[in-house]
Amino acid sequence: MSFNTFGRFFRITTYGESHGLGIGVIIDGCPAGLMIDEEAILHEMGRRRPGQSKLSTERNEPDRLQITSGILDGKTTGAPINIFIKNKNARSKDYDKLKNVYRPSHADYTYSMKYGIRDHRGGGRSSARETACRVAAGSVAKQFLALNGIAIQAYTSKIGNISMNRLSDYSPEEIEKSNVRCPDVEVSSQMEAYILKCKEEGDTCGGVIHCRINGIAAGLGSPLYDKIEARLAFAMLGINACSGFEYGSGFDGASKKGSENNDVFYTDENNNIRTVSNNSGGIQGGLTNGMPILFNTSFKPVSSIKKKQRTIDSAHKSAEVQISGRHDPCVVPRAVPIVEAMAALVLADFLLARRLDTL
Amino acid sequence: MSFNTFGRFFRITTYGESHGLGIGVIIDGCPAGLMIDEEAILHEMGRRRPGQSKLSTERNEPDRLQITSGILDGKTTGAPINIFIKNKNARSKDYDKLKNVYRPSHADYTYSMKYGIRDHRGGGRSSARETACRVAAGSVAKQFLALNGIAIQAYTSKIGNISMNRLSDYSPEEIEKSNVRCPDVEVSSQMEAYILKCKEEGDTCGGVIHCRINGIAAGLGSPLYDKIEARLAFAMLGINACSGFEYGSGFDGASKKGSENNDVFYTDENNNIRTVSNNSGGIQGGLTNGMPILFNTSFKPVSSIKKKQRTIDSAHKSAEVQISGRHDPCVVPRAVPIVEAMAALVLADFLLARRLDTL
Amino acid sequence: MSFNTFGRFFRITTYGESHGLGIGVIIDGCPAGLMIDEEAILHEMGRRRPGQSKLSTERNEPDRLQITSGILDGKTTGAPINIFIKNKNARSKDYDKLKNVYRPSHADYTYSMKYGIRDHRGGGRSSARETACRVAAGSVAKQFLALNGIAIQAYTSKIGNISMNRLSDYSPEEIEKSNVRCPDVEVSSQMEAYILKCKEEGDTCGGVIHCRINGIAAGLGSPLYDKIEARLAFAMLGINACSGFEYGSGFDGASKKGSENNDVFYTDENNNIRTVSNNSGGIQGGLTNGMPILFNTSFKPVSSIKKKQRTIDSAHKSAEVQISGRHDPCVVPRAVPIVEAMAALVLADFLLARRLDTL
Amino acid sequence: MSFNTFGRFFRITTYGESHGLGIGVIIDGCPAGLMIDEEAILHEMGRRRPGQSKLSTERNEPDRLQITSGILDGKTTGAPINIFIKNKNARSKDYDKLKNVYRPSHADYTYSMKYGIRDHRGGGRSSARETACRVAAGSVAKQFLALNGIAIQAYTSKIGNISMNRLSDYSPEEIEKSNVRCPDVEVSSQMEAYILKCKEEGDTCGGVIHCRINGIAAGLGSPLYDKIEARLAFAMLGINACSGFEYGSGFDGASKKGSENNDVFYTDENNNIRTVSNNSGGIQGGLTNGMPILFNTSFKPVSSIKKKQRTIDSAHKSAEVQISGRHDPCVVPRAVPIVEAMAALVLADFLLARRLDTL
Repeated sequence: MSFNTFGRFFRITTYGESHGLGIGVIIDGCPAGLMIDEEAILHEMGRRRPGQSKLSTERNEPDRLQITSGILDGKTTGAPINIFIKNKNARSKDYDKLKNVYRPSHADYTYSMKYGIRDHRGGGRSSARETACRVAAGSVAKQFLALNGIAIQAYTSKIGNISMNRLSDYSPEEIEKSNVRCPDVEVSSQMEAYILKCKEEGDTCGGVIHCRINGIAAGLGSPLYDKIEARLAFAMLGINACSGFEYGSGFDGASKKGSENNDVFYTDENNNIRTVSNNSGGIQGGLTNGMPILFNTSFKPVSSIKKKQRTIDSAHKSAEVQISGRHDPCVVPRAVPIVEAMAALVLADFLLARRLDTL
Repeated sequence: MSFNTFGRFFRITTYGESHGLGIGVIIDGCPAGLMIDEEAILHEMGRRRPGQSKLSTERNEPDRLQITSGILDGKTTGAPINIFIKNKNARSKDYDKLKNVYRPSHADYTYSMKYGIRDHRGGGRSSARETACRVAAGSVAKQFLALNGIAIQAYTSKIGNISMNRLSDYSPEEIEKSNVRCPDVEVSSQMEAYILKCKEEGDTCGGVIHCRINGIAAGLGSPLYDKIEARLAFAMLGINACSGFEYGSGFDGASKKGSENNDVFYTDENNNIRTVSNNSGGIQGGLTNGMPILFNTSFKPVSSIKKKQRTIDSAHKSAEVQISGRHDPCVVPRAVPIVEAMAALVLADFLLARRLDTL
Repeated sequence: MSFNTFGRFFRITTYGESHGLGIGVIIDGCPAGLMIDEEAILHEMGRRRPGQSKLSTERNEPDRLQITSGILDGKTTGAPINIFIKNKNARSKDYDKLKNVYRPSHADYTYSMKYGIRDHRGGGRSSARETACRVAAGSVAKQFLALNGIAIQAYTSKIGNISMNRLSDYSPEEIEKSNVRCPDVEVSSQMEAYILKCKEEGDTCGGVIHCRINGIAAGLGSPLYDKIEARLAFAMLGINACSGFEYGSGFDGASKKGSENNDVFYTDENNNIRTVSNNSGGIQGGLTNGMPILFNTSFKPVSSIKKKQRTIDSAHKSAEVQISGRHDPCVVPRAVPIVEAMAALVLADFLLARRLDTL
Repeated sequence: MSFNTFGRFFRITTYGESHGLGIGVIIDGCPAGLMIDEEAILHEMGRRRPGQSKLSTERNEPDRLQITSGILDGKTTGAPINIFIKNKNARSKDYDKLKNVYRPSHADYTYSMKYGIRDHRGGGRSSARETACRVAAGSVAKQFLALNGIAIQAYTSKIGNISMNRLSDYSPEEIEKSNVRCPDVEVSSQMEAYILKCKEEGDTCGGVIHCRINGIAAGLGSPLYDKIEARLAFAMLGINACSGFEYGSGFDGASKKGSENNDVFYTDENNNIRTVSNNSGGIQGGLTNGMPILFNTSFKPVSSIKKKQRTIDSAHKSAEVQISGRHDPCVVPRAVPIVEAMAALVLADFLLARRLDTL
């Protein structure tokens, strides 16, 4: 079954293919009365958009959006908000020779097996172009969160084997001034050099994004299956090329002892409850404890490499493929706003769910 | 909002607290006509149950289950299956002194914030006892999967800093003969020694579980938000103390190049499509490609340590707490069947969803 | 697919068969902090229970309930509430001769076609016994509604061809003193006589229930598919033997002109907005307008008649059947609390949904 | 909360307002490989469209649709299908004087209470224009049903007090040649005359639509809350102005005895199981029995009458309103394809659900 809806209360449903007329997203469940800043949406989409720098694909989609419903005099009315983004710069011909071949580590083969039919032009629905819809909707969610004092901030913490040493709060400016969205200037330039080297080799690389959510109250989330970390993991692993999620001390924390990993509570001078460490990443028992939410997501190296690869064709015969379309050598820098958008959608959802907890 | 249902087609809804009358699970959506092996359910529950060895909590719940509905002459009828598990060995008094204190890294504080009311006896709903329901339901799911040739196998691959070198297929016997459920005999005894050392110190430790799903056909999953890896991550992070999920080459793969990480397709002697490597962990574009699904989950060290800890009480005053209840020094060995159960529930769900893909 | 969950926010999931160990219901999503009056639940169940008078089936189930979870010190904790009702007076042998025959207008044939397997004992899951769960859960919903000033009142307005002339507000006492739950004393005794006459003939009869919901604020509901009348219709037609639903002026209103049927607004002395007539049954555009919600539901004559009937058996051969189990000559009086319960569940759900409308 | 999705497996999500840029619908869950006949969609939309005859509103929307996604070479790909319908003939100025007044029996007041904001232009989201989306999506569902031998046929059976005597199967031609979609020629001309008389008086009228679903196999539906009649009732009451639903013998059947109302089974010459009568309307125990599904829906007289009416304004002061926009004197003829579309969506959904019943 195809299922293109994400969220329970603050919900998005997306549609559209990479090389069709366009892509779009319906936001349903956004509370009425929210003043929408369309420039902010465009700004977020600009962060995701290809062609930002020599580090990303040359496909240049200006991503002009059209909000066709749900807004009156700049405010949400409670009706579904449809955002449509036309496709302009689709070069379907690039894909003609891929029609009957299954690219390694792509969705070509699996889509064919699932549906018996496959839109080969630009990857159809599996294209990362769909993430523009997530970023647009996520920007609306961010505007709702901002009213509630919540801010989300993600940045590139690792590319290839190059890692930041210290994860901390950084300003949007510190992050955005880096082409790779890594706020550590020196590490950023090493990352950039590495990506360009991969590109020259016709190869690609992956990395890790660190995300922090500040200003969140205690008590958000759900105790069992819908734990807030479970919804965040679900959201992140639903992003193309995402291969892992951990929160708080995560995989490293698994080597610690309880006495090292436990977060000791205290009451600060403003009578706020805090923890000395934050190995729980702001989450205990599936619920927020008022400390910042911290998580990491890993991204695979892009599977569209320019090097020749062995593979099979749709008749299951051995074949060779060389991918010539426009592709990023590394998606991580552009994935930063997508991670933020998905996190924003999860948080907006839980912020609404929170209203149902008590009498 | 409280939400205690997991799954879309093959669904479970659980209820019950650690120290109440009992816990239970309703399985709704299991196809009619499935012959249920009740002994198999008990066997799985025995793997999860406390008191298996000196490595786990001394709470000794025999976990006798009562299937009150949905089965006729040993077969599912299509009606909801209710499995009820009585609580017997509840020592609520152990928790009396914890009534007004928030244990570090527990759900005490966050539940209080969410609901304004908290069942302090044994952690109430946040207790890991609830996972017995998951294992019981997961066993039913496994029986459905077995009919479709699918087998799930998990084992402990890391405890503290002690790791297995090579992850591979192991038989259930190789896994189960180890007290820690690590099929590498030598590594297993190191792990066991480490856990006992932690226990002696009044401390706890965490670890990593590796899971493999064999026999799965290509085309299962969903392309966008409900990617099979996203549902698996959602299922895993919904387990108590789980702190991370990665599939295929995961976080390590993020350091690789595309040319290293890509999985090259070939057709084997039986005309089956295979990939040379399996860095995709059997999943491409959110859908299975017919190779085994491979994933890892990390587990925090248990937060219930016996050492004295600083904390705050429910009046937000500084306090000290020493936890004397019966707790595991390490949950990882007992979490192995829970990981399998949640994976089984996800797979059963997708196996049903698969029926809706085409005409 | 089997689907045994009702509701979106205030949700119930039921399980159990007529002649199994028992039946039960999980209430999930009830806000924390609600003081539960268990006697009130038992009172509602007493209204539904068989054996109340000579008008109903002789099966005599005392319906003692066991709340196994979700309540602490009399208050809801936000955890799922499981209510279990043991079966005691099951006479499965009555059904042995029905094992291979399809009773006319029963679910025997259709269940066999759907699941390929059928629990013939007492109708299994299709038994009206399941409605005890709805009434128990509905009573919890009513307690939540009462806190919000909302009261639901249903009564029998028609049996066979005997109708009440004037539908209006009546007190619970006026309704409950009638064996048929018709508050008009004279009409009630005619109805009673008619039901007894049907019973003597080995026949059965149907009727209509009128329901009124008072104290509801304006703005509850949903504009499109989840209109409040649509959810109420869904709830009612989901009751065994219910064959129709209309709200406001309903089917009769279809013969009126707009100028006759429109409800003119005015502001009353307390500055409340009211309408002169209430042909809209308190609902406009899918949303409540603050006037009482009014609706009718029709119920079929019970299909279990004692007269001999022609039918077919499970080999599709012609057969004869005479039903000897214990059955009501008319379900309408006992359906009154079921209608109220389902309405209460719908309203509780919308009351929660209302919290998500605005910023 | 706003909720604009209908269906569980074959799902639609709609968006757009009467006087915005346009309206649209996403169909998600339609199986891959379905050949889509776009002319058939246009044909259905033509049946719903205003301006068909002097009986309907003069607003003349050609309803050209644009399928922006989900179709490749004429076939569904399994991706979401977005159908967008531009608004062209919007005369928002007609509504300026209604900005601050609440029309009797309209959604003006209730929307204001729910959202605190209201799109007064053409009724915004509450406009019947939204039903064009339902008809477009319903046509896709019909094409899926046709492959499975299922055909849906609705017609006008009552207008004001003018009723057809005998409900039976009629051909599409017999229905469509009538301006009111009543296949009885004589009754049709009486209905037409009555509607025109109402129009002349500046008044409006309502009626009843009868719907028949042929070719359906036994075993579709769900036993409890999701009974097929419950989903149909939900679908119908979700249509603007629909005020009632009954299936089989419905409200009239409530006056019958069991011995009269029961449907006796027999096996016909082709070894098909049939019932002598069809008072169950093809449904027993919430599941289809293989006989045609029969139901009726009632529609209110249109609330937009041209006569002057008393009302209140948004300051809750007494006011007078005279509605001058373009409105139908009777929606029933145009509601016929909407009833069919909603029924088709329900059936397509259950046809998919049916695949999950057994092993």
